[in-house]
Amino acid sequence: LDEFSLINKFFARPHDGNGVSLGIGDDTAIIQVPPGEDLLVTTDTLVSGVHFPEATSAAAIAHKALAVNLSDIAAMGGIPHWFTLALTVPAADENWLSDFAAAIHRLADQAAVSLVGGDTTRGDLSITITLLGTVPRDRGVKRRGAEPGDLLMVTGSPGLASLGLDCITGNTVLDSAISAACVDKLEYPEPRIAEGRALREYATSMIDISDGLVQDLSHLLEADKLGAILDKNALLSLVDRQIAEDQRLDATLYGGDDYELLFTVPATHYTKLNSSWKKDFAPVTRIGEITSTDGVLLASGDSDLVPVNQRGYRHFI
Amino acid sequence: LDEFSLINKFFARPHDGNGVSLGIGDDTAIIQVPPGEDLLVTTDTLVSGVHFPEATSAAAIAHKALAVNLSDIAAMGGIPHWFTLALTVPAADENWLSDFAAAIHRLADQAAVSLVGGDTTRGDLSITITLLGTVPRDRGVKRRGAEPGDLLMVTGSPGLASLGLDCITGNTVLDSAISAACVDKLEYPEPRIAEGRALREYATSMIDISDGLVQDLSHLLEADKLGAILDKNALLSLVDRQIAEDQRLDATLYGGDDYELLFTVPATHYTKLNSSWKKDFAPVTRIGEITSTDGVLLASGDSDLVPVNQRGYRHFI
Repeated sequence: LDEFSLINKFFARPHDGNGVSLGIGDDTAIIQVPPGEDLLVTTDTLVSGVHFPEATSAAAIAHKALAVNLSDIAAMGGIPHWFTLALTVPAADENWLSDFAAAIHRLADQAAVSLVGGDTTRGDLSITITLLGTVPRDRGVKRRGAEPGDLLMVTGSPGLASLGLDCITGNTVLDSAISAACVDKLEYPEPRIAEGRALREYATSMIDISDGLVQDLSHLLEADKLGAILDKNALLSLVDRQIAEDQRLDATLYGGDDYELLFTVPATHYTKLNSSWKKDFAPVTRIGEITSTDGVLLASGDSDLVPVNQRGYRHFI
Repeated sequence: LDEFSLINKFFARPHDGNGVSLGIGDDTAIIQVPPGEDLLVTTDTLVSGVHFPEATSAAAIAHKALAVNLSDIAAMGGIPHWFTLALTVPAADENWLSDFAAAIHRLADQAAVSLVGGDTTRGDLSITITLLGTVPRDRGVKRRGAEPGDLLMVTGSPGLASLGLDCITGNTVLDSAISAACVDKLEYPEPRIAEGRALREYATSMIDISDGLVQDLSHLLEADKLGAILDKNALLSLVDRQIAEDQRLDATLYGGDDYELLFTVPATHYTKLNSSWKKDFAPVTRIGEITSTDGVLLASGDSDLVPVNQRGYRHFI
């Protein structure tokens, strides 16, 4: 066994039920998918210097690599179960690997997912995780499905992560407590698994915000040539008032890497959603409405509707 | 959309049934696993300059990246169905991507597997594929399960791929037709899917040969502290007689990257296996026997048993 095979010692743990009848250490894992459930599959790669600054801690990298995949399952209203880890590292650094493995296992335990396979190779640092989950047959919440008149809603406070990135890169200076909270949101996003599962009962369409609210909203709208009117005051309410209004609005509209859920619900479900929403869930906020006219507009209440520019979020670089 | 999102245009194809109810383009794919089947999961990463020489063609890289994963499913006696592709490339080179995509689709069609998700990122060239397959409940053929007295058998001619690598790197010079065949085996290994499925009826243990026959054999033996006696003449018969005997034996014992199946069968099943073996399958050869004594020995017929050294195969570099 070469040093890279040995790395597997950091990740191998006895499998723990959860449908896994054969875990790491054979040609493949063997898993029993619960009958009556659809299987969900997602994969995401994080590359050092592209998706995170090179100085990011091993723990934050590990957390994020799993969290972004958990978020994809959450955005379908699914329950995550099993994942594989393909880790490419420049060297077999025991301290780094031990921190990385501890952080992966910590989030895996928290989300009740099992590592069932992996591959470790030498090269520039990158992490690919493929995550499998399930959802009751035909109950997955897709990107397509919104109707004109549906309310547009969001969990948590999208925009914080990009403010965190701006703090790290020196593009902005914020109050130190706010800055720390934003950097934490960037490095340790919390996938909204419980929230996504609960929203299965209400949402007509759903996506997680990785590339910015406006850009990810376009994925909900484009298939059916729908539009949306965003409520400026609702958006501004999501982020701390100590931050300047322009910066707040910009972060909320275009900031990525938050992994909050963006979803639509029929107006008739709004009251029931709010009253049944659990106290330990991330809060949900109504931020706009779906329209039948192509295009995204911003309503500020005291003036005309203003078209919202499409603009991408480049994560890092 | 940035150039790397656009790369997805090379890979997106309408999904084609096969249990896929939602393919590429949402937060996750949605798949229906046939009832009564176990799910198999495997993942493998190929890194340029580590698993293949940098001069390798895009088509050969794509083929191999999928083939090595197909081989893992084959080694369980399973049927491959769905895969995700995480592709990291240094630049969005249209020609390269087009060749890569064509080769992936070609092998995917041949093996009847569907691409259900992917992620394309910028960085040093590496490819991670996660492949899902199925096998009837509890019928997966594991590495563990051999019994003393079982026959040790192999598909095809392990050793050719490493001879091909030696030809490419200039470590050896072979007759040009033989050299071409060996390089083809290195670059375009044929996963033994149909053979693996047929062996589900006979094999007590099975693995695919990626790290060399001796090393992969140790995985079949180690769990139960078994040993094996290898038949030197049978091993020599696998590779063209024009190649020197020592070189032939060395390649067969230690050469990796062949993705042939190594498996054990009870002696009582040998005749039935041979008589039922289909003409279009890769041939199978009996190369030895499992013993109850730890260690691997080589029998040459005309002398004493000689211990076989454990030695790894380093793929490339």
